[in-house]
Amino acid sequence: MSGNILLLSGPNLNLLGEREPAIYGTTTLAELVDLATTAARARGYGLEHVQSNHEGDLVDAIHHARGRCVAIVINAGAFTHYSFALADALATFDGVKVELHISNPEAREHWRHDSVISPYMTATMAGFGAVGYRLAVEGAISKLEAT
Amino acid sequence: MSGNILLLSGPNLNLLGEREPAIYGTTTLAELVDLATTAARARGYGLEHVQSNHEGDLVDAIHHARGRCVAIVINAGAFTHYSFALADALATFDGVKVELHISNPEAREHWRHDSVISPYMTATMAGFGAVGYRLAVEGAISKLEAT
Amino acid sequence: MSGNILLLSGPNLNLLGEREPAIYGTTTLAELVDLATTAARARGYGLEHVQSNHEGDLVDAIHHARGRCVAIVINAGAFTHYSFALADALATFDGVKVELHISNPEAREHWRHDSVISPYMTATMAGFGAVGYRLAVEGAISKLEAT
Amino acid sequence: MSGNILLLSGPNLNLLGEREPAIYGTTTLAELVDLATTAARARGYGLEHVQSNHEGDLVDAIHHARGRCVAIVINAGAFTHYSFALADALATFDGVKVELHISNPEAREHWRHDSVISPYMTATMAGFGAVGYRLAVEGAISKLEAT
Amino acid sequence: MSGNILLLSGPNLNLLGEREPAIYGTTTLAELVDLATTAARARGYGLEHVQSNHEGDLVDAIHHARGRCVAIVINAGAFTHYSFALADALATFDGVKVELHISNPEAREHWRHDSVISPYMTATMAGFGAVGYRLAVEGAISKLEAT
Amino acid sequence: MSGNILLLSGPNLNLLGEREPAIYGTTTLAELVDLATTAARARGYGLEHVQSNHEGDLVDAIHHARGRCVAIVINAGAFTHYSFALADALATFDGVKVELHISNPEAREHWRHDSVISPYMTATMAGFGAVGYRLAVEGAISKLEAT
Amino acid sequence: MSGNILLLSGPNLNLLGEREPAIYGTTTLAELVDLATTAARARGYGLEHVQSNHEGDLVDAIHHARGRCVAIVINAGAFTHYSFALADALATFDGVKVELHISNPEAREHWRHDSVISPYMTATMAGFGAVGYRLAVEGAISKLEAT
Amino acid sequence: MSGNILLLSGPNLNLLGEREPAIYGTTTLAELVDLATTAARARGYGLEHVQSNHEGDLVDAIHHARGRCVAIVINAGAFTHYSFALADALATFDGVKVELHISNPEAREHWRHDSVISPYMTATMAGFGAVGYRLAVEGAISKLEAT
Amino acid sequence: MSGNILLLSGPNLNLLGEREPAIYGTTTLAELVDLATTAARARGYGLEHVQSNHEGDLVDAIHHARGRCVAIVINAGAFTHYSFALADALATFDGVKVELHISNPEAREHWRHDSVISPYMTATMAGFGAVGYRLAVEGAISKLEAT
Amino acid sequence: MSGNILLLSGPNLNLLGEREPAIYGTTTLAELVDLATTAARARGYGLEHVQSNHEGDLVDAIHHARGRCVAIVINAGAFTHYSFALADALATFDGVKVELHISNPEAREHWRHDSVISPYMTATMAGFGAVGYRLAVEGAISKLEAT
Amino acid sequence: MSGNILLLSGPNLNLLGEREPAIYGTTTLAELVDLATTAARARGYGLEHVQSNHEGDLVDAIHHARGRCVAIVINAGAFTHYSFALADALATFDGVKVELHISNPEAREHWRHDSVISPYMTATMAGFGAVGYRLAVEGAISKLEAT
Amino acid sequence: MSGNILLLSGPNLNLLGEREPAIYGTTTLAELVDLATTAARARGYGLEHVQSNHEGDLVDAIHHARGRCVAIVINAGAFTHYSFALADALATFDGVKVELHISNPEAREHWRHDSVISPYMTATMAGFGAVGYRLAVEGAISKLEAT
Repeated sequence: MSGNILLLSGPNLNLLGEREPAIYGTTTLAELVDLATTAARARGYGLEHVQSNHEGDLVDAIHHARGRCVAIVINAGAFTHYSFALADALATFDGVKVELHISNPEAREHWRHDSVISPYMTATMAGFGAVGYRLAVEGAISKLEAT
Repeated sequence: MSGNILLLSGPNLNLLGEREPAIYGTTTLAELVDLATTAARARGYGLEHVQSNHEGDLVDAIHHARGRCVAIVINAGAFTHYSFALADALATFDGVKVELHISNPEAREHWRHDSVISPYMTATMAGFGAVGYRLAVEGAISKLEAT
Repeated sequence: MSGNILLLSGPNLNLLGEREPAIYGTTTLAELVDLATTAARARGYGLEHVQSNHEGDLVDAIHHARGRCVAIVINAGAFTHYSFALADALATFDGVKVELHISNPEAREHWRHDSVISPYMTATMAGFGAVGYRLAVEGAISKLEAT
Repeated sequence: MSGNILLLSGPNLNLLGEREPAIYGTTTLAELVDLATTAARARGYGLEHVQSNHEGDLVDAIHHARGRCVAIVINAGAFTHYSFALADALATFDGVKVELHISNPEAREHWRHDSVISPYMTATMAGFGAVGYRLAVEGAISKLEAT
Repeated sequence: MSGNILLLSGPNLNLLGEREPAIYGTTTLAELVDLATTAARARGYGLEHVQSNHEGDLVDAIHHARGRCVAIVINAGAFTHYSFALADALATFDGVKVELHISNPEAREHWRHDSVISPYMTATMAGFGAVGYRLAVEGAISKLEAT
Repeated sequence: MSGNILLLSGPNLNLLGEREPAIYGTTTLAELVDLATTAARARGYGLEHVQSNHEGDLVDAIHHARGRCVAIVINAGAFTHYSFALADALATFDGVKVELHISNPEAREHWRHDSVISPYMTATMAGFGAVGYRLAVEGAISKLEAT
Repeated sequence: MSGNILLLSGPNLNLLGEREPAIYGTTTLAELVDLATTAARARGYGLEHVQSNHEGDLVDAIHHARGRCVAIVINAGAFTHYSFALADALATFDGVKVELHISNPEAREHWRHDSVISPYMTATMAGFGAVGYRLAVEGAISKLEAT
Repeated sequence: MSGNILLLSGPNLNLLGEREPAIYGTTTLAELVDLATTAARARGYGLEHVQSNHEGDLVDAIHHARGRCVAIVINAGAFTHYSFALADALATFDGVKVELHISNPEAREHWRHDSVISPYMTATMAGFGAVGYRLAVEGAISKLEAT
Repeated sequence: MSGNILLLSGPNLNLLGEREPAIYGTTTLAELVDLATTAARARGYGLEHVQSNHEGDLVDAIHHARGRCVAIVINAGAFTHYSFALADALATFDGVKVELHISNPEAREHWRHDSVISPYMTATMAGFGAVGYRLAVEGAISKLEAT
Repeated sequence: MSGNILLLSGPNLNLLGEREPAIYGTTTLAELVDLATTAARARGYGLEHVQSNHEGDLVDAIHHARGRCVAIVINAGAFTHYSFALADALATFDGVKVELHISNPEAREHWRHDSVISPYMTATMAGFGAVGYRLAVEGAISKLEAT
Repeated sequence: MSGNILLLSGPNLNLLGEREPAIYGTTTLAELVDLATTAARARGYGLEHVQSNHEGDLVDAIHHARGRCVAIVINAGAFTHYSFALADALATFDGVKVELHISNPEAREHWRHDSVISPYMTATMAGFGAVGYRLAVEGAISKLEAT
Repeated sequence: MSGNILLLSGPNLNLLGEREPAIYGTTTLAELVDLATTAARARGYGLEHVQSNHEGDLVDAIHHARGRCVAIVINAGAFTHYSFALADALATFDGVKVELHISNPEAREHWRHDSVISPYMTATMAGFGAVGYRLAVEGAISKLEAT
């Protein structure tokens, strides 16, 4: 099986590499997208990337991926914790869905401990830093090929 | 860098492959340990495995790994949700620590939504099924080699 | 009395008819808008429709309706449960305001049980499926003409 | 399809028209029953009405309607918020079930915000005043005929 | 000013004098009604008494008192803690309303600490034992005559 | 020792055998009463049965059993979860008191998890289906004869 | 039996008569003390009064009353809701203890709904306005003479 | 049908007969096992018993019973209230599962009111003292033979 | 308009300048009072200052200001979080009332996040350090002169 | 020191002057921006203003201000209470950050009592009406110059 | 090292020996102070004692001890559970701080289970009765000399 | 009086001296046991020590001490916060029982603030570091000799 994977990046992730490097590391978002793209191509998949600070843009991107992409890997940033619109959008997508975080939210502020999108995801991954982008793509592909 | 990785399996995981296959799949624990061992060896690491239904055995195994293993990958099973003794033990281990679940606990009973060990872990991964054992080991090694 | 009614559709409702038909039915949004328009015209009112996955677009639409439309019928989708900005916007509108849901949120996930906009609405209606669009418009008009 | 609709009125609703008219309006219960009856007859259905301040009477009426009426429209008054016996009785009824309120409970005291019967209802409607009785009957019939 | 006072006794109060005398004393309900009647007559008022283990009977009695009695003194027994129907009925009564308890609920089980009728009462009194019946009637009359 | 046992059946239990058989089985209430009567007679006890959808009737029946019956077995149905009046009535009964449920409430909706009468009971039993009626009577008698 | 009654007035009660008359009435504290004194003397008791905005002064006054006064009537004002020191002091007093409020706290702000001193009181009274001072003294004396 | 029943006794139950006899009675665990064995044999079943203060031993015993025993009767002692590992183990057992308590936990400390294993049990029984061991075995067998 | 402003300083503020300078800065209370006095005089107002570690002293000072001062600026220190007596006292004051904090309580311990006096204040200000004393006085005066 | 200050206005603030004037006053947003601009210029600073009903626009504006503006003054409107994306964006800005509200949220609906952005702000100010815009700018500048 | 230890006694502790001896024992406060003084002198330290029912006096005493005493041992009585002013005062004291209780608060009323001062203390001790005064002083000295 | 004291050490305490020395100090468990033994012997008592990472071992040890030891001093480590089995075991022990912690749990993570064993203990002590072992033994002996 083969196809395209949609990588979604939520609010403030455009600042990666310069924002709070002690928490998020010094890798830029472009570099992370490269890591994910390389991992996808190595397994014969394409990768599209959308970043937005607008919740509606991410919902639109998920709609646009329906019937066209085989998997979604999403680092929803702060939307993780309150965007039920995103949760509903993800629920409409039939492929593999992986929730990804760079740092471990459970080790940070209390409001980062609950994810409103998790119940609608295939799998979740957090705390692996930049390498998580490669692992999440590989995990999504393995789930796709295992089905 | 190189060394041994400790894979820990909590209560009831010895039944994997025969227990609730709709949730946990049909892969046995032995097969999962093989997947993890292969992944470790491919990167030049060894892998030790301990499974127990006794909380104290897992605490002992973590103590025994101190200063001897470079990383711990743990699927703590139900202990995930109440064993503060395990949390304290993991806090005493200085290497990379990855929390692993076969299914996605956020999509199951309410009491599976909180992990008492997560705040003390380097990274977490859930819902990837059998492939998670390979990904978790690779993720642990990548974190080790990135440091 | 006569005038225009604003029908607002929140996030993911553009997918109606193809998204989770077991819950939302097979009627498309266009068909629902037709039902509402017919009901309005039958009573001598016009109907405008705005759908968006962007919270800000809905707020803007409400502002734009102030002093121009006589009533708002809103299916806010997932925004129902957290968009206080929408609640504030609705509070600034002086006409009749009806909250509408296709399914019965009280019979679904726990987070769908609370509506942050309800306290600011004239009336609410849920669970009637497609026919709710006709009933909500008729109800809004009846309230307008009863005042 | 045709048949009888049971309209149920809970505690204190016998005082409608004289009790707190600022909240509940000046229409009497008899007038509301007339509105509902007219709406039912216009669509070829009969309407029975039972009002009681006794929870057990309402449970009995629901039992009596099983296999005999095609729908129930219920304004359970204060029972809405604590009568699990009523909830259980409604769960035993196989037809269409509509929960109705004259005012919008979400805009009133905190204890009026939760309904224990909602999860067992087909649909809910609140805040339309007297016209709600007509709309609820029409909605029930539309649901019946849509099935 | 003069008129009738309605004394209402809720569930299980018919057993007073024989039920748990360590908590409720040895005075019978008939004796308490006598105390209240005497207090009312001494100030030129009549007293009616209704006891029932049926919530609906108490609601009916309150309705019956509307426009006919000048005050209600109610020991609602366990209904105090969950009967919102009683709360709604009391809210429809325009005269003086006194909530009465023989023992002090705050010094007993946790579920006795909250009263759902208190917010709708003129005044409350608890813990005075039998003498509370005289004091509550006197207090109601004093409030009536002070108005 | 010998005497009469009061079997009490709460709201909606009159529908047993036809209501939600997947949960409550196909045995009718009359058959369950027969099972209980047989069990009582086998040990030399009589059995009285009262079923009502009216909370007040159950309270009255408990009062009527005081000093006349030696034990109460009660399946309070939905009253289990909010009728503090029933709890108070049971507290006034000096004999053995057994709470009985056909299904296991802990495995059903959240509101069925708490019983307001349990703290006042001698013993509780749930989930044994029809056979529970025999076991509860036997258990009550064993407790009586053990005292 | 005879003796002295201590009347205690908590913070801000020195402003009675001029502070928020819509809630607290226009009677001054001196007039209320006169009402209480008259009620006590009519039954052969003396009355002492202490008002303070200092929690410690009220604790001291309670200590000073131990073994010297037969009853305490206390309107603790806002201390009612958080002064556990006052609760502990009242617990050390062996006589009759009556908690008194001019208005009905249950009908006001949420933080006025819980009293931390109630569990340690003989009786409570609220909402009778000025006449409450006479009733509370009479109630205290009746409890004293009933013991 | 016939086979073996596993009786499991949790922590501190080895002290039965000498530990807090006011709550747990004076019957020893050996005597209770005899009661259960006799009840099982009378119906043609065998009974195995395992007691341990170690959670892991109980989990192991449940695993060992899989495919070998037809029912489990478990008094999990304090593990009832926090051992999710035990809950998971019980969920893997396909036969009849009965939760048993000697006293009524609902009438004791607050932390004894919730059972984490109940949702996974066929039936529950509490408060019958020693006779509960006989009743629970009989109930389990009746459920087995009714299936 | 002109008049006196009362500046109130709560418990432990007498230590300002020496207590935890990382949080509260090195300015002493005397210097802060000077800043406030200067700001008041520049606009033609006087300033009185009262500091006390005794809740009752602050209540007394507020009473003393009634009808004599035109505004109160209060840094209530820890009393902010539990002194309902202070809240009641402030509610009796008819002028402008400003709540002031040197640091930002929302960025500190959890118990500092709720203020029991805020609902009774005209305005609040926090986190500006020493300059807050000037701004609060200016803000109070602007509110006075805007009225 | 000198530079530009970014004034941010959240959802519905474009309606200021016409929306609920009893709460928000009659000053328009343009007038408030003028007040802020004048205050900034008087101290030698520039002021930029961005208003949007779109959360993403405000996040973008904060990103755009990084390294270019010296301070942010933000009235986030309803976003204050749930936009963690805004909180994260503000956390990435290194200058002085002031949270501003026209009315006092603590004296309004319950959901307005918690701010999710406060923990990340330098200072907060609420309830001063229009003058708050001048004070907030002055306070921000004073903090800048004090550093 | 040597110096003075401040022993602080909170509200109602002046009654020790006569107040609720079943809980607090029969030793008077003077005797407890003697025990503490003896323990201090045996190690070469002095001991000062302050008891007050006024929260402000205790705060003042802590301030007075700053830079003059080397340790504080405090039995804050009921202030333990709500006096954040005391917590703040203790936080300003740089020496060793020991929280002391005569009885074990965890075995008493629920409101005694939380201490607002504990997070700011070096150590805590409860339930040792009179001997706790000696142990707390010795513990404080040991901590001082260990530093 | 004389006899043996059982010192119990819970999970992870075997690592004392090497585990997180900033929190737990550098003293090893062997040294702490020596401190406790010396303190016991000085007063004529023996001391036994059991450490285990297995909850069941600690329960067994408590059982073994019944009727043989006169007191238990227990540092239950993380079991403090969830082992109700340990709480039940301690409840069966009739002698003096002291709960001991090296650091002050109230100043650490939130889950360390509640102890499930405290309600069953004679006394508690926390935060004294190594010296706590001597003080706890002395306190236990003083309690024994005071009885």
